[in-house]
Amino acid sequence: MSVKSDVSLMKQASPKLAATSNELRNKVLEKIADNLLKEKDKIFAANEQDLKYAKDNDVAPQVQKRLLFNEHKLEDVISGIKQLMTLDDPIGKVSLARELDEGLTLYRVSCPIGVIGVVFEARPDALVQIATLCLKSGNCAILKGGKETANTNKVLFDIVKESAKEAGLPEGILLQATAHSDIDELLDCYGLVDLLIPRGSNAFVQYIMNNTKIPVMGHADGICHIYVDEDFNEDLAIPVIVDAKTQYTAACNSVETILINRKIAKEFLPKLAKTLAENNVKLFGNKEVLEIIDAQKMEDDAYAKEYLDLCASVKIVENVDEAIEHINKFGSHHTDCIITDNDETANKFMQMVDSAGVYQNASTRFADGFRYGFGAEVGISTSKIHARGPVGLEGLVTYKYKLFGHGHVVADYANGSKTFKHRDL
Amino acid sequence: MSVKSDVSLMKQASPKLAATSNELRNKVLEKIADNLLKEKDKIFAANEQDLKYAKDNDVAPQVQKRLLFNEHKLEDVISGIKQLMTLDDPIGKVSLARELDEGLTLYRVSCPIGVIGVVFEARPDALVQIATLCLKSGNCAILKGGKETANTNKVLFDIVKESAKEAGLPEGILLQATAHSDIDELLDCYGLVDLLIPRGSNAFVQYIMNNTKIPVMGHADGICHIYVDEDFNEDLAIPVIVDAKTQYTAACNSVETILINRKIAKEFLPKLAKTLAENNVKLFGNKEVLEIIDAQKMEDDAYAKEYLDLCASVKIVENVDEAIEHINKFGSHHTDCIITDNDETANKFMQMVDSAGVYQNASTRFADGFRYGFGAEVGISTSKIHARGPVGLEGLVTYKYKLFGHGHVVADYANGSKTFKHRDL
Repeated sequence: MSVKSDVSLMKQASPKLAATSNELRNKVLEKIADNLLKEKDKIFAANEQDLKYAKDNDVAPQVQKRLLFNEHKLEDVISGIKQLMTLDDPIGKVSLARELDEGLTLYRVSCPIGVIGVVFEARPDALVQIATLCLKSGNCAILKGGKETANTNKVLFDIVKESAKEAGLPEGILLQATAHSDIDELLDCYGLVDLLIPRGSNAFVQYIMNNTKIPVMGHADGICHIYVDEDFNEDLAIPVIVDAKTQYTAACNSVETILINRKIAKEFLPKLAKTLAENNVKLFGNKEVLEIIDAQKMEDDAYAKEYLDLCASVKIVENVDEAIEHINKFGSHHTDCIITDNDETANKFMQMVDSAGVYQNASTRFADGFRYGFGAEVGISTSKIHARGPVGLEGLVTYKYKLFGHGHVVADYANGSKTFKHRDL
Repeated sequence: MSVKSDVSLMKQASPKLAATSNELRNKVLEKIADNLLKEKDKIFAANEQDLKYAKDNDVAPQVQKRLLFNEHKLEDVISGIKQLMTLDDPIGKVSLARELDEGLTLYRVSCPIGVIGVVFEARPDALVQIATLCLKSGNCAILKGGKETANTNKVLFDIVKESAKEAGLPEGILLQATAHSDIDELLDCYGLVDLLIPRGSNAFVQYIMNNTKIPVMGHADGICHIYVDEDFNEDLAIPVIVDAKTQYTAACNSVETILINRKIAKEFLPKLAKTLAENNVKLFGNKEVLEIIDAQKMEDDAYAKEYLDLCASVKIVENVDEAIEHINKFGSHHTDCIITDNDETANKFMQMVDSAGVYQNASTRFADGFRYGFGAEVGISTSKIHARGPVGLEGLVTYKYKLFGHGHVVADYANGSKTFKHRDL
């Protein structure tokens, strides 16, 4: 059977899933947690196969590390599910209730988006997180994980699907895509799939964005900045920058460019460079930077650079205004930070920097659904449409307007025989 | 100067506009209202030119009607601006405030989307409505109106722009595109324009959607349905259907398909057909319909039809479930109505029909920002991403996450020396 025909059936099933109660959806989550525990030996055995294949085929060590699914990861996943169960039902929330006129009442009520396709990296815990976020929010999900975790993902997906069935959810609401060619079929499902969430490399996300009419949520680049202001606290600046750069270099929220106020550059930059060198970070800078520290030369127009590695660009700026301008021009609208004790400067920065996250005196690495307390995230969005930043349950719902009348017609209001009241309830 | 270089400057100006106060933005709206009154003779003179040109060149009567901008239209426009001024500031609303840990506080704050391009039909009042909605919500706007109103639009745009300048808004935040070729340049402004809102014919909206990477909000089709249930009130059903079909046939929210429960079809359909015939509505139906009334023959797979005229499709369905299935398959997810006195049936319909608006016993023509009490609308969205239904101020904002720390680093939470509190404030 083709992806398209499966997705077509899923589209028909989606209103049924949307109509389920929070109680039932939580019951499914509980079943998933129980069954993951029950079937853990089967999961670990499948994971062994994936690990062996990765080792035998010289898969990158970073990827190999992410593949691992052990007791510890299982505990994390189960605790994530339990947390998700405690969160409020995102469906059925009334965000507007208005009497338009006598007997004519309008409600805006949250509801699931419908059918969501998520393509994600080779990380088995991601499959469970994404599936449970979609189920909790009443969305049908098409899941395509990295091929390196094919065996683990198959077992995990079967557990999730079987649990949904046991708990009494409608059939056909979950689908696992396994072949890479399935992705192109998925991209062709405009009108059936309501939202695509790609996670992965810049090139991969760009490919998805460029090859479908389906709305795409996510981010291609993560070019995050830290601007060190003249009114900065040095004891705080260096640890924050070290954390933002080195705590996990492959993450989209790690810092890539450090901007330094010219007034403090001569004194602060050498100290920063020394600590970063001790942490094996290689620095790149333009001519002005090279006059102060030893670094790799870079051109002024090359600052839109995402290293995802122990490297960082450095630039000296005149003031917060130039920092803002630089970030809005070269950044990716992901997460940017100012180090300053001057709240006025901080407010200006946080107001004018056009990014999903704007921070004062904290590592950019905090940009994450779990750290924000969303339970988990399906991804981080740098788009300004729909959800922005880490996307949890709230980003997986939309709303509909429900209007209750008693035979009301527009002609009465057009000819002036009736007028609207517009009274909020 | 090219559109792209103007838009590039606008992108730089947009954070400045985003940082303005509601007071200042309201002052601009007031100036616009004042200046429209002051310059009304100039506006009417320009409108005369457009009307004369349209008449001389045999522009469709419907379009000619929309071109007219007289004292009455001016009053409407000014009353719309005054209403907009009374609405709450959509910017700076805090939708989440959470202490992640001691001294580490997260806020989610609404902010403008940034740069919005709106391409709209030949209706001078639309230019003022759209411009004022964008300004009130702190967004830069690129406006392209229908060519038939070129003269009127030029005068109106100049008044809006001059008013913004007089009130002290930043330069470069408003742009009028006039040539049709400007649209293609605009479509190419990915990364500079944050959102496109096309209004107009199905083919035009499809063209925009298919030819840009910029997010597009709007609707191509408006295939709205009314389902008449077995538990219906006849005195109410017929006037609602007549209003939904005839009150303004060219509107996207007018009904195109009438679904009738089989149990009542034989008795009700002839009465309905008679009244619709008296209102000059031509009916189309499949074989089963033709057995009951005289109508044009249509095939079962042809029901996804938008007439925008005094025509309607009719189909007989077994029950509410078949009605829901039909609407989700053939509809455009715009606005669909059930006529029933049975609230249980209504709830099922309103839950399961996957449309921006789901109505009980009211004309589909109510789907409109003004009627919903939004002041005005920039368009109606059938997308489920971002805004859905009539889009007023709330659909023109996004949010950003502001995180205030005191040197917090992620490493402390990763190694377990600190744990998150996640306490909502």
